[in-house]
Amino acid sequence: MTGRTGLSLQELTAANESAAFNRMAEFEVVSAGDGRAEIGMAWRDDFTQYVGHLHAGVIAALLDTACGFAAATLVDGVTASHFSMNCFRPAVGRHFLAKGVTVRAGRRQIFAKAELFAGDRDGEMSLVATGETVLVPTAP
Amino acid sequence: MTGRTGLSLQELTAANESAAFNRMAEFEVVSAGDGRAEIGMAWRDDFTQYVGHLHAGVIAALLDTACGFAAATLVDGVTASHFSMNCFRPAVGRHFLAKGVTVRAGRRQIFAKAELFAGDRDGEMSLVATGETVLVPTAP
Amino acid sequence: MTGRTGLSLQELTAANESAAFNRMAEFEVVSAGDGRAEIGMAWRDDFTQYVGHLHAGVIAALLDTACGFAAATLVDGVTASHFSMNCFRPAVGRHFLAKGVTVRAGRRQIFAKAELFAGDRDGEMSLVATGETVLVPTAP
Amino acid sequence: MTGRTGLSLQELTAANESAAFNRMAEFEVVSAGDGRAEIGMAWRDDFTQYVGHLHAGVIAALLDTACGFAAATLVDGVTASHFSMNCFRPAVGRHFLAKGVTVRAGRRQIFAKAELFAGDRDGEMSLVATGETVLVPTAP
Repeated sequence: MTGRTGLSLQELTAANESAAFNRMAEFEVVSAGDGRAEIGMAWRDDFTQYVGHLHAGVIAALLDTACGFAAATLVDGVTASHFSMNCFRPAVGRHFLAKGVTVRAGRRQIFAKAELFAGDRDGEMSLVATGETVLVPTAP
Repeated sequence: MTGRTGLSLQELTAANESAAFNRMAEFEVVSAGDGRAEIGMAWRDDFTQYVGHLHAGVIAALLDTACGFAAATLVDGVTASHFSMNCFRPAVGRHFLAKGVTVRAGRRQIFAKAELFAGDRDGEMSLVATGETVLVPTAP
Repeated sequence: MTGRTGLSLQELTAANESAAFNRMAEFEVVSAGDGRAEIGMAWRDDFTQYVGHLHAGVIAALLDTACGFAAATLVDGVTASHFSMNCFRPAVGRHFLAKGVTVRAGRRQIFAKAELFAGDRDGEMSLVATGETVLVPTAP
Repeated sequence: MTGRTGLSLQELTAANESAAFNRMAEFEVVSAGDGRAEIGMAWRDDFTQYVGHLHAGVIAALLDTACGFAAATLVDGVTASHFSMNCFRPAVGRHFLAKGVTVRAGRRQIFAKAELFAGDRDGEMSLVATGETVLVPTAP
């Protein structure tokens, strides 16, 4: 994975399948291209924290993956060095969608951000958390 | 969980057991008390990202849990609203230990930080990531 | 400053004037209302870091003020406890405009974010940095 | 400023003097070396926010400078791309001391953190804020 042409939806779907955690969590690459990527996941009863909401680690995994895949549509081979998130309300729902977008793709660093939405029974989506990453190109 | 007396190691172990994600990930509360907490986890082949290192979401889960449990030794009932982490090197090892410490327990917000160490075959521990959280008391 | 009705443009302009740093830096409240606020500042030769770009502290001051004033249009009396920023490119220009927006105004915490634009001689505006804050209400 | 030998206290004092903001704010490089740096500043009545505490922008300037100078003792030529801080209590005092330390100096990114202490009339120092930066080498 060298160069800066970025990965296609097909390549990112393959990357998603090649990651054991993403397979275990059944992450789905809903869309990817032009500096953007969307990652979906269905509710999982085994992914909760002690009061029954989605665990912060899974929220982070969704946001971080959306950021990384968004960046990877522009720059082949990136790795996140800084990640942060804000959690606005309890992450509960039937399914989740993390929407990532690249804010700035520099030569030394790429900045991406993401929003996590929780969908209820009626398909209503609510913003539950936001995240951002600083990524560095891994290509030499 | 009201009041500000904080939770004991026994109570935090029970809280850890009550969280489905923590059970699934086999998190262990190694120690807790006086504003500090340590969370251990053995290597898991199903927790990797696409190049075989520990997934950022699991790194976040360990750091966030160590921060939250450290704060919970001082203040009953806390929830994290902001989390951030820096990843220094690939998170690979036979086991992981996240050490959390409360930096400041204010009336409206609690600040905690954590370090994640990866242990190799020889028991050598290396710092792989750091994290920090801003928590709010959930008690009325 | 109690209650949650928020401050008007006139009140925020007065608050801006009452802050010694803001007066010294000649910050201007360009607009404020409905969870948003814009803070302007002209270039200052005495505000640079060692290679002649706007100092990170002044970038932070502009972003943090835009976030705080945006939140203050919704909630009287807030104070920032967490602030972060990403700097994308050198902050140089004839003038600067920081645009803040409230992302989530909860009971215990308010989340706001801001973008900093640098304007050149021709009035062209470029995004140079983004920031975000976690604020807490100061009213009892 | 190329290479990775890092700057001496004398060179950092010169760098501090060459920055207009640092001169205006009368920052002093108290110590520097081995991945660490300390920046001092006396109280300034013209540096306050609207309730008379030190302005968040100046807190950020002190923390960011301590981080950057700490990193610069190891790596010539760095620039901060990400900065964050937590403010624990009102920043008031007769003088301030920001202590920066490099956490990890990688090839592509350097991570540093800092603590800001406020000193009162009796010389008692209190921790008022912490910060951290992600820096990139500017040398080719």
